[in-house]
Amino acid sequence: MLEWIRKHPSASKLLFSFAIGVILWFCPKPHGLSPEGWKTFAIFTATIITIVLKPLPMGAISVLALTAAVLTGTMKLDDACNGFGNSIVWLVVFAFFIAKGFISTGLGNRLAYGIMSRFGKNSLGLGYGLVATDLILSPCIPSVTARAGGIVYPILKSLANVFTGDSHDPKMASFLTLCAYQGTAVTSAMFLTAMAGNPLIASLAASHGIIIGWGDWAIAAVVPGLMTLLIMPYLIYRLRPPTIRHTPHAKEMAEKRLKEMGPMSLQEIIMTLTFLMMIILWIVGHFIGISATTAAMLGVSILLLTRILSWKDVLQEHSAWDTLIWFGTLITLACALNTSGFSSWFSQFVAQYVQGFHWWWGFFLLSLIYYYTHYFFASAVAHISSMFAPFLLVAIALGTPPVLAALLLAFFSNLFTGLTHYGSGAAPILFGTGFVTVGQWWKTGAFCSFLFIPVWIVIGGLWWKVLGLW
Amino acid sequence: MLEWIRKHPSASKLLFSFAIGVILWFCPKPHGLSPEGWKTFAIFTATIITIVLKPLPMGAISVLALTAAVLTGTMKLDDACNGFGNSIVWLVVFAFFIAKGFISTGLGNRLAYGIMSRFGKNSLGLGYGLVATDLILSPCIPSVTARAGGIVYPILKSLANVFTGDSHDPKMASFLTLCAYQGTAVTSAMFLTAMAGNPLIASLAASHGIIIGWGDWAIAAVVPGLMTLLIMPYLIYRLRPPTIRHTPHAKEMAEKRLKEMGPMSLQEIIMTLTFLMMIILWIVGHFIGISATTAAMLGVSILLLTRILSWKDVLQEHSAWDTLIWFGTLITLACALNTSGFSSWFSQFVAQYVQGFHWWWGFFLLSLIYYYTHYFFASAVAHISSMFAPFLLVAIALGTPPVLAALLLAFFSNLFTGLTHYGSGAAPILFGTGFVTVGQWWKTGAFCSFLFIPVWIVIGGLWWKVLGLW
Repeated sequence: MLEWIRKHPSASKLLFSFAIGVILWFCPKPHGLSPEGWKTFAIFTATIITIVLKPLPMGAISVLALTAAVLTGTMKLDDACNGFGNSIVWLVVFAFFIAKGFISTGLGNRLAYGIMSRFGKNSLGLGYGLVATDLILSPCIPSVTARAGGIVYPILKSLANVFTGDSHDPKMASFLTLCAYQGTAVTSAMFLTAMAGNPLIASLAASHGIIIGWGDWAIAAVVPGLMTLLIMPYLIYRLRPPTIRHTPHAKEMAEKRLKEMGPMSLQEIIMTLTFLMMIILWIVGHFIGISATTAAMLGVSILLLTRILSWKDVLQEHSAWDTLIWFGTLITLACALNTSGFSSWFSQFVAQYVQGFHWWWGFFLLSLIYYYTHYFFASAVAHISSMFAPFLLVAIALGTPPVLAALLLAFFSNLFTGLTHYGSGAAPILFGTGFVTVGQWWKTGAFCSFLFIPVWIVIGGLWWKVLGLW
Repeated sequence: MLEWIRKHPSASKLLFSFAIGVILWFCPKPHGLSPEGWKTFAIFTATIITIVLKPLPMGAISVLALTAAVLTGTMKLDDACNGFGNSIVWLVVFAFFIAKGFISTGLGNRLAYGIMSRFGKNSLGLGYGLVATDLILSPCIPSVTARAGGIVYPILKSLANVFTGDSHDPKMASFLTLCAYQGTAVTSAMFLTAMAGNPLIASLAASHGIIIGWGDWAIAAVVPGLMTLLIMPYLIYRLRPPTIRHTPHAKEMAEKRLKEMGPMSLQEIIMTLTFLMMIILWIVGHFIGISATTAAMLGVSILLLTRILSWKDVLQEHSAWDTLIWFGTLITLACALNTSGFSSWFSQFVAQYVQGFHWWWGFFLLSLIYYYTHYFFASAVAHISSMFAPFLLVAIALGTPPVLAALLLAFFSNLFTGLTHYGSGAAPILFGTGFVTVGQWWKTGAFCSFLFIPVWIVIGGLWWKVLGLW
């Protein structure tokens, strides 16, 4: 038996999740819950367990989950396909295409080198430079993997080469890697379109009546976000001080690369204007009746018309199609939990246990649990889809102002990826450089969480009070 | 001006369609039609003209069309994304993945060689063999391009090599090419899942209350379809007689290839069982409450679980994603024509002119016009999306039994692709062999239409009478 499991890890993981699903399915349903609610919960739980165990890619698991839901009669076929027509899903899909344009026109690299040539005089400046690059790109690149892997990683690599080569400073490379990684966690938290899971959060919140637009998200995040980004590189600089302090090499390299690139091409100029137009539409869209997805569609249309994107590029953007499938499926399942009455049953069930707490303390505790359970997740999306909605409902049942609860959990859903070397799609790429040991990575992750949590709760809390969110 | 147009063909085509759209938009709307109906018609017409002129791939045009519809306020964003969640769209998407498994396991080739080794004794037999291969594969390969290009074309090529090489019979190669091409037109007409445009037809018909299931389609098509497939190769054999009549070479080649392939692999066996399961579910699904899409989802799930398909294969199946976009968009636009009141206005408008005709003659004339206008279309889908729904409505207004009208137009929507060397996705591939001149191709196309139309109208009509469809 154990031998078989060792030899067939994927099959045994699949069988395990399947068994959990079947056991739950045949368990007597809790009092007060509809049969559909319980069935949906069984399929949902089995799906999330499979996603966490990862015997197959998330997209394949999604197809299996939908098939199970339809074949067992838990869901109607039309409802099962509904998630693929959700406009928030298409916001992410279109944003992937825009990110492609960003990287392929070279605009991403130009921005990065521009920042380096300005900030790159010393080590700390380089750290800030990497973070700033990430921040500028984050509103338009919803894939942390694309942002960290496609732009930040190559620059980090060439910077690190400069210092691990002649000047022999592995500590320098490790400082920069950690800055870049913790930076992505923070920048992802700052925009609705900075991480693929964020729109999932927005749509989970919306299904409970809490509307968070692109502008709402950005405005709420800007103060605690910028403050964290200001402190974090310095904190890491103290934790893992690089031997070399002054880095004229980096500045030179960036200036050389910029010179090599020459003046901006027409394509880059169009890409810049499209980018600016989308940011403006994302901010003011709420007032002129243009939703975030429409703005992204317009952006993609412009890129297609100007041939910055070919249709082939679009079709080859596999991460977009992958996201469409898993994201559409998770939205479908989460909506089904809602419409089948599971979510409201669950919040009522929990509400009776937490009635005594003041919401301040109750919600604080909930947020900490939500944050640190990320040690058990290898993907923000799996964590969000299994825990965001229930924690939100419990928080609201405690008396937490709904928007406040949704936003803090949303921000934590990104910040917590900093904890481990497997916490987000960017982690394996940056950890893969080999500049940082697991011990250093986790220690920095823990220290950064001691910075992130107070800043976002205290400074964030004050800012949201100013904004009138609670 | 003319110089500029010559130099920028794509841009001028785009500007031309855009101008048509703008002119229609600002034209005074016809009496009795809602403003939304007219606006939708303007966007729809501009889209179809762009698809016909093809300045960009159909998918890119679809994104532009949806953006225009949402930005002008003609359609709400959620309605615009709705087509991507349509379960019929996903039937085609899933069928593309299944076709991938068919081709990659080698099962497609094994079937083809098996048929060749049985039928391949003489030239006419080879023609029938190619058609039979196509017929067996057609229920599961909704892309004519994939079927003709991925399986029939390679076999045709190796057969042709045998005869154009040593034995010098170019007429043989041309006979086989024409058989293969006219064959795809007929097999495509026989199953809902044999051509990407067929589900579009089913959903256009459904939006006017005419439900055509997978089984309904197949049963209605089987008699006229098989009869056409029986006569057609012989007709082409008389039209373009090959010099060589007996072909032991072909039989030998097929037997040799089969021997090289060895016994069926486990993957092929699983693929065969999955294929059979799907066909059975597609036929009986109606009675046990399993829709065609659910059956296809189950098929894809099995292929993913047994690793016949990897998730990477799925993501790399670009034609599936392409189809998702254009098909989803066309369904969205066609639905909008319907909900905005354009379709019903149009049918009332035409109804007053055709009141005098008996539906027999009226519908016969309509079908002929529908058939032969395909000389002006380079894609069955463009033809279907622009003409199917209006012609259906006019036929119904004439008094034609709705199911009969929908089915005959549906079958003609595939048969008419035989007319030209650009009439379907298979055409450029098979015409590209160079074995057939344009003149021969068109002549054969016209002759075959003289066979197809009477068989499907007369024999088909009698069969549908037996089935009680009219």
